[in-house]
Amino acid sequence: MQIYGDKRSGNCYKIQLLLALLGKSCEWIDIDLLAGDSRTPAFLNKNPNGKIPLLELDDGRTLAESNAILNYIGSGSSLIPSSAFDQAQMLQWQFFEQYSHEPYIAVARYINLYLGLPDERKSEYESKQDGGHKALSVMEQRLASSLYLVGNQLSLADISLFAYTHVAHQGGFDLIGYPAIRNWISLIKDHKGFVPMAV
Amino acid sequence: MQIYGDKRSGNCYKIQLLLALLGKSCEWIDIDLLAGDSRTPAFLNKNPNGKIPLLELDDGRTLAESNAILNYIGSGSSLIPSSAFDQAQMLQWQFFEQYSHEPYIAVARYINLYLGLPDERKSEYESKQDGGHKALSVMEQRLASSLYLVGNQLSLADISLFAYTHVAHQGGFDLIGYPAIRNWISLIKDHKGFVPMAV
Ligand SMILES: N[C@@H](CCC(=O)N[C@@H](CS)C(=O)NCC(=O)O)C(=O)O
Ligand SMILES: N[C@@H](CCC(=O)N[C@@H](CS)C(=O)NCC(=O)O)C(=O)O
Repeated sequence: MQIYGDKRSGNCYKIQLLLALLGKSCEWIDIDLLAGDSRTPAFLNKNPNGKIPLLELDDGRTLAESNAILNYIGSGSSLIPSSAFDQAQMLQWQFFEQYSHEPYIAVARYINLYLGLPDERKSEYESKQDGGHKALSVMEQRLASSLYLVGNQLSLADISLFAYTHVAHQGGFDLIGYPAIRNWISLIKDHKGFVPMAV
Repeated sequence: MQIYGDKRSGNCYKIQLLLALLGKSCEWIDIDLLAGDSRTPAFLNKNPNGKIPLLELDDGRTLAESNAILNYIGSGSSLIPSSAFDQAQMLQWQFFEQYSHEPYIAVARYINLYLGLPDERKSEYESKQDGGHKALSVMEQRLASSLYLVGNQLSLADISLFAYTHVAHQGGFDLIGYPAIRNWISLIKDHKGFVPMAV
């Protein structure tokens, strides 16, 4: 089993964090997006959507989408809750992450941290702030009454949302107003096996 | 069990289509977004993210995110493949739908069909075209060698992607260049229990 990814990408870090928490390892193949590694015919043959992370099994079958990869690798572990409803709530938070959180927080962070907030993308950066704060408020509301996102126990939902939330300040989102999120971040960092995101 | 939704919304139609294919029924509570039904304190209490569809169980627990609701309602049915890898691929397509398909195709359709393509949103509409065609190409490539998205059998992945794909022309995406997608659309329409989307 191999992972194609870039460890500084939050979507790829999700996989790295899960593997570390499970005490598993996996061959990692570095993909340099800026060098065009995800645009080669060989890579597009593996993932026609041209995105990382990508999992490749030993028999050559591939799986894209960070959250789908988490579900595959985490299958059968204690990070997937046992009741059908809790499993569905875990998926709810993972879809929320992809639709209402990542497109705001990860994109604002990318524009700010990697591109250095250039003038021509300043209005896009600013347009991401409201949506990002809305997503953080939804999380804060949940975490104010529950230690973790689902069923008071660490699950894949927390891993999915930890990736970009704990570096949200790099996208201009000050977490000072979100005490329950800050508490949740430190709980996750205290888990056995935790690895920080590469910088 | 109750569903809060608007049947003209593709994200809500996914649930309606799944229930119909399974021969199940469910109480439906109409939410009129334009009338502000999703902004009332009562609704925000059920879904702090303020979006439909939303599922409410008889004991009051709620579940948001169309694709999470599909997984909950479809649990144990033949629409979820049996192998762990096929299940992960089903999720892959559902996350793809939320990240790389819906934000382009559903949004372009909304601007065109519901707002009547007003001048001030024309550039946003146009900015959605490339991404929408890219998503359709990824689907076309898969469906050219497989009748359905996962394992040659109808699954929740097909329901998730059918919702906005079969009305993509309403967002300016001509399906003429996507013969495998057109074949897949007619296969789905032929399934026992199929219901069309409300107009
Ligand atoms: N929905 C995807 C998003 C992955 C994604 O956007 N990956 C970025 C790096 S963080 C990428 O590959 N970008 C290159 C591109 O889209 O061309 C997932 O969760 O895996
Ligand atoms: N990721 C969500 C998206 C749901 C969504 O965007 N719903 C729209 C109607 S199609 C909505 O409720 N919009 C109102 C709003 O966002 O305020 C899902 O799949 O359920």
